[in-house]
Amino acid sequence: MLYLIGTGIHDEKDMSLKGIDACKKCAKVFAEFYTCPVSVNITSLEKMVGKKITVLDRKQVEEGEVVIESAKKQDTAFLVGGDALSATTHTEIMLGAKKAGIEVKIIHASSIFTAIAETGLMLYKFGKTVSLPFPQKGYFPATPYTNIKENLDAGLHTLLLLDIGMTANRALEILLELEGKLKGNVFSKDTKIVVVAHLGGDSLIKYDAIENLKKMDFGALPHSIVVLGKMHFHEADVLGLFK
Amino acid sequence: MLYLIGTGIHDEKDMSLKGIDACKKCAKVFAEFYTCPVSVNITSLEKMVGKKITVLDRKQVEEGEVVIESAKKQDTAFLVGGDALSATTHTEIMLGAKKAGIEVKIIHASSIFTAIAETGLMLYKFGKTVSLPFPQKGYFPATPYTNIKENLDAGLHTLLLLDIGMTANRALEILLELEGKLKGNVFSKDTKIVVVAHLGGDSLIKYDAIENLKKMDFGALPHSIVVLGKMHFHEADVLGLFK
Repeated sequence: MLYLIGTGIHDEKDMSLKGIDACKKCAKVFAEFYTCPVSVNITSLEKMVGKKITVLDRKQVEEGEVVIESAKKQDTAFLVGGDALSATTHTEIMLGAKKAGIEVKIIHASSIFTAIAETGLMLYKFGKTVSLPFPQKGYFPATPYTNIKENLDAGLHTLLLLDIGMTANRALEILLELEGKLKGNVFSKDTKIVVVAHLGGDSLIKYDAIENLKKMDFGALPHSIVVLGKMHFHEADVLGLFK
Repeated sequence: MLYLIGTGIHDEKDMSLKGIDACKKCAKVFAEFYTCPVSVNITSLEKMVGKKITVLDRKQVEEGEVVIESAKKQDTAFLVGGDALSATTHTEIMLGAKKAGIEVKIIHASSIFTAIAETGLMLYKFGKTVSLPFPQKGYFPATPYTNIKENLDAGLHTLLLLDIGMTANRALEILLELEGKLKGNVFSKDTKIVVVAHLGGDSLIKYDAIENLKKMDFGALPHSIVVLGKMHFHEADVLGLFK
């Protein structure tokens, strides 16, 4: 049996009782926290589940073999930050295990995809979620910008997930650079948007013009951004608290 | 202090350690499970948090006063199914409490909005989430249908959340009735879609033509539906497991 378990949005205490129980039943427990950089303390987590946890690196996770080979022989748990399946690479491990005839049980947890409602914005008023990668030499994709624009045209909010290690400040610069290139009239320095940081920990939520947000220090990662579509007055009411 | 706490997607064991710790610190614990009908056993939950839990009815929740008045006087927890803030009524309680000068701490949990990834579909390929209400005499809204069509036109999947007490079978009939009225060429009896039931418990996932799904028994509620947009080959691979 393979248990794919989310440790939740912030630290090891965001894990569910079901997840902890499953780890206790397993002969082997693996974990990885690079896909979703959370503040899990491994020593404390090991104490909670009563056994040693093997932390995998990016290559081991992407190949998936370590986890699947272990699950062929013994009950195995694989812990990941956020929900169990918010990253494609984890879905691929689920698929690989099922194809190898291994029973897979998914144990869900809290995640930015839902926790973003802490801003007061309604989940069913969000369009497609968008990822913002670091631009590289010869690689400055316009897709994040065009996707945000499509959501806006439909009156919908956009949850913008930032590349591993990216601050909201850097993301705001990138958005303004994209505006400069693509001129779709989506962002100006006066555009009011929402920045969230370390949500689920001591959640920081700021609603302000890009110009002001760019100068703020949001503290520890992860940071995320919401680009606002058409607002319901209830949403505006809650956002008002975060000015 | 008011703690707004999600109990997670299925039963009381989906609650996080953080949520349980918060309840233990509170003088008063309220709960409601009609907005998000989960399989939480109150007696078992009371044992876990070591105190009596007062279950509120719909009217008490919508007014919100019981919870806010209690939080004015003492540390209070309010437990809800799924994530802490997936329903507007809970966001309103957060807002009401903050306006009354009460400190509010949100403790997130697993939710259908993220757990739907158990189908193998990628979360960032979903458009706007759509709710499907029961049609009533003189009330048969076209909005769910037009919203699904907008997502499809953008190549995106739609998570369809069903009205309280609605089975997937009834929902499929409603979708076909809407098609008959609006003729947008979204659904036919051969359209392949996904039904999920009691996700996070013994998750049931079925991918088939509407005609076949209509005859199946999906067991206990809640049920949800995914209308499929353009599929990535990885997604098709995973869905193939649920035929």
